[in-house]
Amino acid sequence: MRATLLHGAGDVRVEDVPDPVLAGPSDALVRVTAACICGTDLWPYAAMPAGSGPARMGHEFIGIVEATGAEVSTVKKGDLVVAPWFISDGTCEFCREGQYTSCTHGGMWGNGPYDGGQAEAVRVPFADAMLVRLPVGADSALMPSLLTLSDVFGTGYHAAVAGGVTAGSSVTVIGDGAVGLLAVLSAKRLGAEQIILMGRHKARTDLGREFGATDVVSARGQEGVELVRQLTGGQGTHVVLEAVGTRAAYDQAVGAVRRSGTISRVGVPQYEEAPIGPSSLFRYNVRLAGGAAPTRAYISQLMPDILNGTIEPGKVFDTSTDLAGVPAGYQQMADRESLKVLVRP
Amino acid sequence: MRATLLHGAGDVRVEDVPDPVLAGPSDALVRVTAACICGTDLWPYAAMPAGSGPARMGHEFIGIVEATGAEVSTVKKGDLVVAPWFISDGTCEFCREGQYTSCTHGGMWGNGPYDGGQAEAVRVPFADAMLVRLPVGADSALMPSLLTLSDVFGTGYHAAVAGGVTAGSSVTVIGDGAVGLLAVLSAKRLGAEQIILMGRHKARTDLGREFGATDVVSARGQEGVELVRQLTGGQGTHVVLEAVGTRAAYDQAVGAVRRSGTISRVGVPQYEEAPIGPSSLFRYNVRLAGGAAPTRAYISQLMPDILNGTIEPGKVFDTSTDLAGVPAGYQQMADRESLKVLVRP
Repeated sequence: MRATLLHGAGDVRVEDVPDPVLAGPSDALVRVTAACICGTDLWPYAAMPAGSGPARMGHEFIGIVEATGAEVSTVKKGDLVVAPWFISDGTCEFCREGQYTSCTHGGMWGNGPYDGGQAEAVRVPFADAMLVRLPVGADSALMPSLLTLSDVFGTGYHAAVAGGVTAGSSVTVIGDGAVGLLAVLSAKRLGAEQIILMGRHKARTDLGREFGATDVVSARGQEGVELVRQLTGGQGTHVVLEAVGTRAAYDQAVGAVRRSGTISRVGVPQYEEAPIGPSSLFRYNVRLAGGAAPTRAYISQLMPDILNGTIEPGKVFDTSTDLAGVPAGYQQMADRESLKVLVRP
Repeated sequence: MRATLLHGAGDVRVEDVPDPVLAGPSDALVRVTAACICGTDLWPYAAMPAGSGPARMGHEFIGIVEATGAEVSTVKKGDLVVAPWFISDGTCEFCREGQYTSCTHGGMWGNGPYDGGQAEAVRVPFADAMLVRLPVGADSALMPSLLTLSDVFGTGYHAAVAGGVTAGSSVTVIGDGAVGLLAVLSAKRLGAEQIILMGRHKARTDLGREFGATDVVSARGQEGVELVRQLTGGQGTHVVLEAVGTRAAYDQAVGAVRRSGTISRVGVPQYEEAPIGPSSLFRYNVRLAGGAAPTRAYISQLMPDILNGTIEPGKVFDTSTDLAGVPAGYQQMADRESLKVLVRP
């Protein structure tokens, strides 16, 4: 079959790889009907050392079950299913608490023995735990929105949930990428009253306004922080959802959060150390929350509003391609010409 | 009157200062009947540069109201009262939320215009908001326990509340100082099932066991972390209460916390930057909580169990002195000969 491989920074190729096969009784084989490129994919695309690959790419997909192992009972051949971005067994003590990304048997698509989702097919381990059946056909117009349940919507939603967004909250969202925009939608869904989106790409911040942003701040750094404070009577917002992952974005979050408020991060930090002492978090009891999003926990919760048309998170896809177009898609996202690329293998 | 002044590292003196007077209509004058020395006082005692003082010392006290300003209505002359360690107006948006240490008119005893508590008398600003009447006499045997409501018990309790300790939680408490021991008592009060106290002073950890610790780990660093993991099936505890404030204590907290758990800090951080990225907090959704404790919020909540004898937080006082003995008390606490020193001016 054809699959996407990253050979080094800037070097994505679609190549022939062996067809996946059932390797254990809890596996399923899924023929991919929709996948996408994630902002997270852009980090290795920017920086992977040559020779450390190739790596299978893609961790968001919808597809049709083609075969199942003997122990699989919740999905069957022909089912249309969505899988979360993180592999979890569904049965360990953390999975039972809904903390799927803390799974003691956790893994990542494209790592170790696992296929990538930007491909024609995928072997899915722990299929009963991983796959959620979609009650529509593969040609449904809802496909882009349903695909966001795999990662990007669930990640934005996790930011808002972990940040404790509730009715009446004021919220700053840092980042106008797809996760940031869906963090806006999530904050709105949880009842936030004021949602300030920090981003500088008008087409994206316009979509942010459509998703529920009440204000847009395009300035960054201290200037951006000052504008957030002006919009909040000098106090900052109860919650800051940080959907970028750079140290600059974290510093902006510290500047924009209200005393006794919460910073919730879902952008994978590209730093390890950062200020958390008396001058940043401690003095005013600012909480730090978030992390690798257990999106599996949110699929069933968020799906109904997609199915009934209340929300349309799939609007974050502004480009569509076949597998052959994936390398160009990476470059378009890296160049910020595309917000998010949908792949139909 | 006599009051405690810090002139520089290691140089505490009890000296004559002007008697306090009512400076505004919301003030009260309180004659101090019980005060104490705090672990926090030991930081400037260890490191204050000569010539930057003198500074009035003490932020925990009980006393008798001697006079009140025209606007004071909740306490009157003759009342025995306790005051919290942080000065807050009780009316700003943060105080109304119970976040007294975020008060927009907040201040510290001994700073700026404010007296210190290790003295014969104190002018109390915002007296209606600050002072809580004690329904006992100044000679009550409950005095040591009631005095802990000012700071040390409320701070340990804040650690546990901010950390989300609840029925069935497993908890690690880092530090066998008075705050750490009262964090143990607080975790027990909130229903924690397993409470691992990390400390190396047997007399203190014995009191910790009396307060509810189920296990004591005397090793520090990676060795201590390994022992906590052995006591928790390899997973660490749901909550870690960090009551020391050093970077080493923070690193220990990161090592001892369970995936998806919470580190709650109340020891004033003696560092600003520390690890919070993928390798420490982010990967497994570990939350960071805590900060300067709004103990005013907990006084009424914790007092009944002291009055009815259910809990005895005053056991952290192992030394008692008059004002003249305060300088020796600082040295005893710095030398770890005393756990906490009670002062009866």
